[in-house]
Amino acid sequence: MSLTDTQSELDHRRLPIDRVGVRGVQFPLSIADRELRPQHTVATVSMAVDLPHQYKGTHMSRFMQVLHSHGSELTVANAAAIPRELLNRLEARRAHLELRFPYFRSKAAPVTGTQGLLDYGVLFEINAEADQTDFVVTVSVPVTTLCPCSKAISDRGAHNQRGVVTLAVRFTQPVWLEDLIELIESSASSPLYSILKRPDEKFVTEAAYDNPVFVEDLVRNVALKANDHPHITWYRVEAENYESIHNHNAWAMIEKPKVDNPDRE
Amino acid sequence: MSLTDTQSELDHRRLPIDRVGVRGVQFPLSIADRELRPQHTVATVSMAVDLPHQYKGTHMSRFMQVLHSHGSELTVANAAAIPRELLNRLEARRAHLELRFPYFRSKAAPVTGTQGLLDYGVLFEINAEADQTDFVVTVSVPVTTLCPCSKAISDRGAHNQRGVVTLAVRFTQPVWLEDLIELIESSASSPLYSILKRPDEKFVTEAAYDNPVFVEDLVRNVALKANDHPHITWYRVEAENYESIHNHNAWAMIEKPKVDNPDRE
Amino acid sequence: MSLTDTQSELDHRRLPIDRVGVRGVQFPLSIADRELRPQHTVATVSMAVDLPHQYKGTHMSRFMQVLHSHGSELTVANAAAIPRELLNRLEARRAHLELRFPYFRSKAAPVTGTQGLLDYGVLFEINAEADQTDFVVTVSVPVTTLCPCSKAISDRGAHNQRGVVTLAVRFTQPVWLEDLIELIESSASSPLYSILKRPDEKFVTEAAYDNPVFVEDLVRNVALKANDHPHITWYRVEAENYESIHNHNAWAMIEKPKVDNPDRE
Amino acid sequence: MSLTDTQSELDHRRLPIDRVGVRGVQFPLSIADRELRPQHTVATVSMAVDLPHQYKGTHMSRFMQVLHSHGSELTVANAAAIPRELLNRLEARRAHLELRFPYFRSKAAPVTGTQGLLDYGVLFEINAEADQTDFVVTVSVPVTTLCPCSKAISDRGAHNQRGVVTLAVRFTQPVWLEDLIELIESSASSPLYSILKRPDEKFVTEAAYDNPVFVEDLVRNVALKANDHPHITWYRVEAENYESIHNHNAWAMIEKPKVDNPDRE
Repeated sequence: MSLTDTQSELDHRRLPIDRVGVRGVQFPLSIADRELRPQHTVATVSMAVDLPHQYKGTHMSRFMQVLHSHGSELTVANAAAIPRELLNRLEARRAHLELRFPYFRSKAAPVTGTQGLLDYGVLFEINAEADQTDFVVTVSVPVTTLCPCSKAISDRGAHNQRGVVTLAVRFTQPVWLEDLIELIESSASSPLYSILKRPDEKFVTEAAYDNPVFVEDLVRNVALKANDHPHITWYRVEAENYESIHNHNAWAMIEKPKVDNPDRE
Repeated sequence: MSLTDTQSELDHRRLPIDRVGVRGVQFPLSIADRELRPQHTVATVSMAVDLPHQYKGTHMSRFMQVLHSHGSELTVANAAAIPRELLNRLEARRAHLELRFPYFRSKAAPVTGTQGLLDYGVLFEINAEADQTDFVVTVSVPVTTLCPCSKAISDRGAHNQRGVVTLAVRFTQPVWLEDLIELIESSASSPLYSILKRPDEKFVTEAAYDNPVFVEDLVRNVALKANDHPHITWYRVEAENYESIHNHNAWAMIEKPKVDNPDRE
Repeated sequence: MSLTDTQSELDHRRLPIDRVGVRGVQFPLSIADRELRPQHTVATVSMAVDLPHQYKGTHMSRFMQVLHSHGSELTVANAAAIPRELLNRLEARRAHLELRFPYFRSKAAPVTGTQGLLDYGVLFEINAEADQTDFVVTVSVPVTTLCPCSKAISDRGAHNQRGVVTLAVRFTQPVWLEDLIELIESSASSPLYSILKRPDEKFVTEAAYDNPVFVEDLVRNVALKANDHPHITWYRVEAENYESIHNHNAWAMIEKPKVDNPDRE
Repeated sequence: MSLTDTQSELDHRRLPIDRVGVRGVQFPLSIADRELRPQHTVATVSMAVDLPHQYKGTHMSRFMQVLHSHGSELTVANAAAIPRELLNRLEARRAHLELRFPYFRSKAAPVTGTQGLLDYGVLFEINAEADQTDFVVTVSVPVTTLCPCSKAISDRGAHNQRGVVTLAVRFTQPVWLEDLIELIESSASSPLYSILKRPDEKFVTEAAYDNPVFVEDLVRNVALKANDHPHITWYRVEAENYESIHNHNAWAMIEKPKVDNPDRE
């Protein structure tokens, strides 16, 4: 039985398509942490290629076959190879992969040392063309922020809240997620923890009070460290505070140009 | 042309359906505030009826016709009539309506008096049967909570955060949304505001520090006031704190039994 | 250093709290599938206990310690023990656990046999009291539904769409998630697959066309099978269709009473 | 009483901030439709400005004051003026506004003419600098798509589903939202409707079957029309299908370069 291959038919609209593929695919993922221990998580996957103007459609099932070609759990090494496999399998000139997943890290509470897992958000974006690959790693790190203005003007207390810092980087050599997470956590009023006993809670409360930051301070603190990092060539850092005194959020962003312009203010 | 009415065909599985209808319908809604000024908002609507065992299906388009029968903007009065119209139009014995919408209220900042709109979440649930109607009103109110433990053990500061209190009530006489909102806001460490100038920020920071509450305190404070309210016959109150020191939330809930049992602990 | 234990202070409002605890905790979970192979996933966890009227607060860090007491990956066996550990650790009379996680199953395409992972949603809810435990398992299964009315009245084609069936069960003996998934998938117009080659796509298209179901049919088909299942004692089944011809959803629900009433219609 | 103005303090990190402001603000919005009738809806608002390197922080309350300066319901005309007001009020060089809101349009069913409201998603993005303003309008339009491959290879039926087309445009003269919506709806297998009686359902079922489109066809159909539109100078069109045979989505995108390159393929 021969079934029509509608996708391979000629298209006459003379319109190439920038990206076409699949989105919202759930797939198990294994990733090694900085101590080289494997960690199991679940990724939401997008894959796309370009489509030349003369073809009516891409072959969607091939994306899924490439995704499954390494077994029923992806590794980061396998995932990184997917865009190049898409180039071959779909005869494309540009291929794109996104993996979004929760990532865990065990942290010791600051006084009692009680260990607890904290979850972070991670996004890998890989673009491949014939002769080059672009890899962007993004981490989202929840932190405590305490308002410098509220502290300065109030006789007691200071409003504080959970915030999220999102840092995207390009790099010359791979950077551990833990390094990016620590870079961010050390830029806030306090890191978060999943287990805090009373001596720990006293510690983080006082540490946050002693170290107030605006969202502006937070993105600048992260930007300074990213500027100094030997392997980071580009970054975009955002901070968003779920303000405890408002029902809206405060937000700031700095993006480092791909080529620095010393005259930029 | 006569088109088959598949829905009206006989079903032989002898299984009545508890609820069948439409979900996720967006529709404009007008609602009068406590000062009797009309406020325009947008509701997400669900409608359902029961279906006797002998019918294969309900007639989904009739739900939408009932919804549209009052024009292109619903009012609360019109909405309240919908369940009974569904009973008639769909020959049902039980009908159910849900309206979920944002609601706005202008509030004056506590020192400068600057007016600003704050948004709340509202849910109306109406169930109608032949001889009775059940109406549950739910409001979700964002507040500030400051941790009593953190304050007690720390030499300076105290962690605080945005939280959301959700209160569902049944009543003998209609209750204004503003009354429920005020009941909740007065139970927290501080209400939220959309505009706070520096003297206001000093005020709410110190007020929150002077009035620490756990989620447990918050639901008890609301429950006490709901118990004392002359028109509230049943309630369920939840408080959820987006903890500023954790990446998870603290949560508490009290539900008043429909018939009070004095021996309940 | 002795730090005040605010939570243990006496409360004088005489209001017991039904449930208090933590929500939105992310934690790795390992679960064995029907072939007894371990599968790694990530759960969103809620834990709660009741709180007697005389105590001001619960001890939130103990919930997290109980969660972490079995290492940095939960198993289903460990999870099932958590409510009873909460009863002891928090001196509570009722404890509640919820685990919500994606679950994967490899399925063969219907003609070519190509294997692909499909993701499902799972919720475990466990309530423990002194002398009894209540366990509810819920699975959410995406399916294809093809409209019987559209098919009956149209000269060609029939609208169809993705829908989700959610089945919650109580049981006398444990039931495999795969059994519940198969029970649901066999009740729809067609199961879904992650990889379909052209012969498979022809097969599922024609199978769906040959097997039209309303949401009403879907919940009745599932209810019939759940009624016949030897180990299911209670169920609640919902079906929601993301209608391809509307921007809203069709929805139906049947709940089996805990004690059957033969006179119920 | 003079309160410290922490935000105005000097910053020594020499890092200008690209954007800083507020996010997630809910606010009522009035917008005129193509028939010049006012329509009331609710917008989610973001506002931001740049911040020169020498200042420690922006003044967040001023964003909210600018938003409220036109009363408790925004109009599109007032909204369009906000970025320039932010430039003045915050002494900034670049200002940014985003408004995201549901938009309604009454449509007649194709055979019976029954009128029903359909909801669309709209995003306005306005960027202002000293001497220029950039305005991007985005509409998200739900449609029916029927798979050409499934139709070609199957003896009966064809899988179809709800999809969403998102079109962003820049323009030389203002374009009505209705014009963009019609441009998109005429590019799909069928438009959606909120009320369809049986003759209408027959019509849309057969129309979709007669007019199959891939996501690739959909973005090309829209791109062709946008290329021909006299006032559209740039566009980005995406189509996402909630595939009825998979639990993931198919997706395609075409972006027109701001300056056309005739050699681009």
